Amino acid sequence: MKAVGADKPFKLNEGNQFYEMKQEMPQPKQRELLVRLKAISVNPVDTKIRQSPLNEAPRILGYDAVGVVEAVGDAVKYFKAGDEVYYSGSPAYQGSNQTHQLVDEQLVAFKPNNISDTEAASLPLTGLTASETLFDVFKISHNPEDNKGKSLLIINGAGGVGSIATQIAKHYGLHVITTASRDETYNWSKSLGADIVLNHKNNLADEFKKYEISEVDYIFCTFDTDLYYEKMIELIKPRGIIATIVAFNNKQDLNLLKPKSITFTHEYMYSRPLNETEDMGIHGEYLKDIADKIEAGIYKPTVNKVINGLTADNIYQAHKKIEDQSMIGKLVISI
Amino acid sequence: MKAVGADKPFKLNEGNQFYEMKQEMPQPKQRELLVRLKAISVNPVDTKIRQSPLNEAPRILGYDAVGVVEAVGDAVKYFKAGDEVYYSGSPAYQGSNQTHQLVDEQLVAFKPNNISDTEAASLPLTGLTASETLFDVFKISHNPEDNKGKSLLIINGAGGVGSIATQIAKHYGLHVITTASRDETYNWSKSLGADIVLNHKNNLADEFKKYEISEVDYIFCTFDTDLYYEKMIELIKPRGIIATIVAFNNKQDLNLLKPKSITFTHEYMYSRPLNETEDMGIHGEYLKDIADKIEAGIYKPTVNKVINGLTADNIYQAHKKIEDQSMIGKLVISI
Repeated sequence: MKAVGADKPFKLNEGNQFYEMKQEMPQPKQRELLVRLKAISVNPVDTKIRQSPLNEAPRILGYDAVGVVEAVGDAVKYFKAGDEVYYSGSPAYQGSNQTHQLVDEQLVAFKPNNISDTEAASLPLTGLTASETLFDVFKISHNPEDNKGKSLLIINGAGGVGSIATQIAKHYGLHVITTASRDETYNWSKSLGADIVLNHKNNLADEFKKYEISEVDYIFCTFDTDLYYEKMIELIKPRGIIATIVAFNNKQDLNLLKPKSITFTHEYMYSRPLNETEDMGIHGEYLKDIADKIEAGIYKPTVNKVINGLTADNIYQAHKKIEDQSMIGKLVISI
Repeated sequence: MKAVGADKPFKLNEGNQFYEMKQEMPQPKQRELLVRLKAISVNPVDTKIRQSPLNEAPRILGYDAVGVVEAVGDAVKYFKAGDEVYYSGSPAYQGSNQTHQLVDEQLVAFKPNNISDTEAASLPLTGLTASETLFDVFKISHNPEDNKGKSLLIINGAGGVGSIATQIAKHYGLHVITTASRDETYNWSKSLGADIVLNHKNNLADEFKKYEISEVDYIFCTFDTDLYYEKMIELIKPRGIIATIVAFNNKQDLNLLKPKSITFTHEYMYSRPLNETEDMGIHGEYLKDIADKIEAGIYKPTVNKVINGLTADNIYQAHKKIEDQSMIGKLVISI
């Protein structure tokens, strides 16, 4: 089997340190599946982990996968060889920049049956991040009726996570306000169901006034948390909840949360798999729910660029495109 | 009517700047009650507000009150003259260091009928703070059965808030771990229902090992949040919730919350009344629930020291006692 990895952390301006290698085919144990991969996607987290210290070389990145089950461990309950699946998996395993990968079945669901492999590859990591933020952090109801009247602001609505979060939030009854700045991203976010798209080149408090929004129940930050920290505190309701998925560059004043008793969560989709929590099977459940909604025509896949072929150069180019921060929706690689 | 107030912020070592004054009797409007006060308590928040800039002199502190309704505004629905009530109120009004006070009826409940005025004065502010933290922040169920198996660590279990939080958490089914360091505070916390009392003079991670606690679902910090910030992050479960009521002295690294997707709330009991939220009537409901449990013999009042008489000197002495940080349970003043 083939993989693309690197032996040390590197920045893109050091040149392409990814290389193609032959690996031994791994054998699934216990609840593991061995999956032959057909499509993967590249996320901002790939570019961050690429630059972080590594424990053992080579390191194989990649946190989204679509493929066919080839073999199963002896404790596997839900899948069999031949099943088409999709998942994000766990960074405790080597990533999906390979032709074959191991994954714990609890983190896996059947691929939606009405979309292509590349379309399906756009969904797991971003869909799980959005689902955890909405259901585990904001604790919105699974019954859309209960969520009516609640409002969510998504900072950077046209990014990978924003694109699926908008759709899930809208389907589950929230009033969804996103931010964008170009015509292209405005239109993309609108097409995914955003009720209002604010221009994040303007002061968001002014944008709130313009659209007669007084305050929101929830804010989901998917871009530059340092920049938005104080602004989010200004725009949120008393006892509201702010979540971010973007690490800070600076320490912050937590006392600012006090006057409105604000709740702040640093959402990290891999906290369950990395800590092997008892409830990590909820990832499989979230992916099943997303597949159901895709099959019912309620959600759309968010892929917006496809690169063909698992090569070191393609992985490098994909990282470059993500680090540009110009990506609308998701970048997928077909294998 | 008589009041005790001050005309400027001051520190205790500047000498007693409180003075007694005559005030005009206020008239209740709309949903306001005019209450003749019989007992009040002094909380750490009094000592903090005493030192903060003031908008208008004199400033009358005091955030816990027990008394008898003397008159009601024309939109009042739930109370009438002669009713015995208890409440914490709102800092938007002059405080309870007076013989008579105005309060919005939504923040009020009937005083528990089986305890004295001084006992009842120990409950509102701390009971509301604990109730908001448990029900609004940790979102524990109102059905104790649902909370079985969940664990809560209260930093400083023998303080005013810790004393009532322990009782409410225990009644609602949580496994309650508190911290204390002296025999007196250990025994006090145990007597209020703590399952385990850790010694906070030791490293809490070592104390966890000693009592075979691996991690907890919730942590409620009622003492020196800077000191405990990183330790709490170490002791909490993945996706756990940390709440504090103690403001920070330093900025903090919010990225530390990421690996376990931790939620952090800066609880402030006055965020609802000060922001006049639509749901501020929940304060009346929480106080009613506490009164019910007191009358049923489930909770005990937490008063541990009573001073007699509303005088400038007594208020000053009470502030001194609170700033010593040696107070176990609550300090009450009878009027």
